[in-house]
Amino acid sequence: MRLRNKPWAKERLQNYPQYVIGNPEDWKGKWHELFQNEHPIHIEIGTGKGKFITEMAKKYPNVNFIGIEAYTSVIVSALDRLIEAELPNVKLLNINALQLESIFTDGEISRIYLNFSDPWPKNRHEKRRLTHHNFLQKYQHILKKDGQIHFKTDNEKLFEYSLVSFSTFGMILHDVILDLHHSDYDGNVMTEYEEKFSAKGNRIFRCEVSFMKKDERK
Amino acid sequence: MRLRNKPWAKERLQNYPQYVIGNPEDWKGKWHELFQNEHPIHIEIGTGKGKFITEMAKKYPNVNFIGIEAYTSVIVSALDRLIEAELPNVKLLNINALQLESIFTDGEISRIYLNFSDPWPKNRHEKRRLTHHNFLQKYQHILKKDGQIHFKTDNEKLFEYSLVSFSTFGMILHDVILDLHHSDYDGNVMTEYEEKFSAKGNRIFRCEVSFMKKDERK
Repeated sequence: MRLRNKPWAKERLQNYPQYVIGNPEDWKGKWHELFQNEHPIHIEIGTGKGKFITEMAKKYPNVNFIGIEAYTSVIVSALDRLIEAELPNVKLLNINALQLESIFTDGEISRIYLNFSDPWPKNRHEKRRLTHHNFLQKYQHILKKDGQIHFKTDNEKLFEYSLVSFSTFGMILHDVILDLHHSDYDGNVMTEYEEKFSAKGNRIFRCEVSFMKKDERK
Repeated sequence: MRLRNKPWAKERLQNYPQYVIGNPEDWKGKWHELFQNEHPIHIEIGTGKGKFITEMAKKYPNVNFIGIEAYTSVIVSALDRLIEAELPNVKLLNINALQLESIFTDGEISRIYLNFSDPWPKNRHEKRRLTHHNFLQKYQHILKKDGQIHFKTDNEKLFEYSLVSFSTFGMILHDVILDLHHSDYDGNVMTEYEEKFSAKGNRIFRCEVSFMKKDERK
């Protein structure tokens, strides 16, 4: 998306410490204390303007959600939604996904959502794709053993790349949907981007994957 | 496809023992002797009217191809192609894929092609799908360790099912193409079915998978 410079954004984030956690490293291994409950923690990496995570938090009050977004000028819109919705089970982090392991301890997270991640189509940018092995390694550390990644995108090349990346990393595909909006999948919560681009007729791809090996399953 | 009754078909197959192997169990473990060379053996399961395998055999003279087709009234058309093309590196088997392990010994096959397999869309017919775990187990036995399955279909549901089936079986996806005819994949050989249905605008899905585990790779 096109980013507008919002010099005031950083200050606005700081003004709402109940929603935007400014020192997330301090909570590593203690996120349940922050939420003051033992509900599972789901994170969305690249939370954008926050439509998905806010709606998910309303729909699943017994899940704690953390939205991660590197762009200050974008996450500020997610904060606006959160102020309006007054949800106790969402926090926002204005950090880069590279930092995940300094923020969460091993197995602290139950699910990761990757929604319409930047496809980085050029080969030389492959390592920036959020489904590159380097990122999968980070996800494996912070996810519970049976934790899942739920990934959706309208970018065909990124989906092809990601299926192969998951598989060659040793991950297991549990569900693949090749046309989400014309499937019988129930309960899809759309992102801003998804609403806009599916309206144009773009096909949405979706999958659920885990790090669990075959012999570890029942 | 609609099957026409061709009472003469069986006799016609028997009249061409150089192309249609009538007693394939006798060649188990000895297929290289039949071909009189040590070239790798690729099989196509559900070879239909034989367009794919005949063209592949012309294109790759240093590969031995075996086309397997259960329907006598269909494989007879593949035989016609073969008589016309006079190819030394193709044989046809009028058998059911359930019999694979009585025809081929462990590791005898280098590659398996599954092209536009019957989707068997009803749940109660799941076991008949050629990418069901029961079939994967057979493929695992007859394939060389690093042998691959190349699978293509225009059936979205079958492709979704198959990706999950491969993955939960522990197989590795090496390549996934979500729109074959609009991809940069080079050298695609089309089946009869593929020509007909892609002309109607159907999207063709394709993948390459193997049984090789991560720790066995370089």
